[in-house]
Amino acid sequence: MDEIPSKYLQEAIEQLSSLPSVGKKTAARLVLSMMKWPKGQVSSFAQAFIDLENNIKTCQSCYAYADESICEICKNPLRNEKEICIIENISDQMALENTGIFKGKYHVLGGLIAPIDGVGPADIQIESLIKRVSDNPPEEIIFALNSSIEGEATSFYIHNKLKHLPIKVSTLARGIAFGHELEYADSVTLGRSLTQRTPFQINP
Amino acid sequence: MDEIPSKYLQEAIEQLSSLPSVGKKTAARLVLSMMKWPKGQVSSFAQAFIDLENNIKTCQSCYAYADESICEICKNPLRNEKEICIIENISDQMALENTGIFKGKYHVLGGLIAPIDGVGPADIQIESLIKRVSDNPPEEIIFALNSSIEGEATSFYIHNKLKHLPIKVSTLARGIAFGHELEYADSVTLGRSLTQRTPFQINP
Repeated sequence: MDEIPSKYLQEAIEQLSSLPSVGKKTAARLVLSMMKWPKGQVSSFAQAFIDLENNIKTCQSCYAYADESICEICKNPLRNEKEICIIENISDQMALENTGIFKGKYHVLGGLIAPIDGVGPADIQIESLIKRVSDNPPEEIIFALNSSIEGEATSFYIHNKLKHLPIKVSTLARGIAFGHELEYADSVTLGRSLTQRTPFQINP
Repeated sequence: MDEIPSKYLQEAIEQLSSLPSVGKKTAARLVLSMMKWPKGQVSSFAQAFIDLENNIKTCQSCYAYADESICEICKNPLRNEKEICIIENISDQMALENTGIFKGKYHVLGGLIAPIDGVGPADIQIESLIKRVSDNPPEEIIFALNSSIEGEATSFYIHNKLKHLPIKVSTLARGIAFGHELEYADSVTLGRSLTQRTPFQINP
């Protein structure tokens, strides 16, 4: 891949291959496919990233990416501000929004407490959460964090900080994923799904 | 994936997912990873594509992508202009250049004759090849086209057009790929590698 006949091609390939999981060969294939796009489409492609870098903001309420200083969800009067879902990042928000079930608001931590990686409580949006919750207490806080050591440590830390407030605190149900086979579930998952068993319902 | 909280994010995700084999989920993951890049890097990313679209040219000799009207390989006096390797596209050129073995020049057809897809001889760079070869006959022409119906039809067509000229015409050896197992080779490949068997050599 050293002999690329054009430095413009080379630079575009380099840039694409700086994306995670995009190698040089894939990047070259993608850039060459872009060369077949109609005139102007490559510029529109580029413009989207310039607009992204220049215009994207952080919502001053929930710390999600937003186009203005307050995001669409925080601005939406139809969303219940008495329920706040604590998430790590905006991909998790997209996944939750895709379910169409949650109608409350979010708080994006931007990371999880991970002492090994040098991420402490002050490095993520915990202080802003505590202020937000103290200023305007919701009825319920829902932890929707990854089921990992870091996720649990972060939930625990936030729970401790908020336990003096009369707020219901819940977390996503852990259990056997839909479509997964019992025999392949790990023992922690299986154990939890047993201790936290739920009443049987038709079409829950 | 419908509920993306920012139209700038959404547009960047849409643009990335217009690349082949990049779905919406992958695009979202890639764009979110770009959000962690240092200030200015997303603009450099975008600039590479603007430069690409605005500045890339086609070499007037071999029809490869080039930064100027004649590409680096065609300009290079160390490359043997008496050998012309006929290729479909620049990815094939990159693959051949990576071998470090070919020291001649190229001619990029930009496609293969494919009547089913409506691609005829006039739609690819055959006329320019014939003119180039007639004006300045090389000693050898090497077909390095895909081993497909279209590749063979294209080689056959070009060979017919050039057979009045005293030029040696060769094609890439077809056979068992290095590291491949015989029992899994298809019968056409195996049959050809048998009829076109080569003298045994130590370290060929």
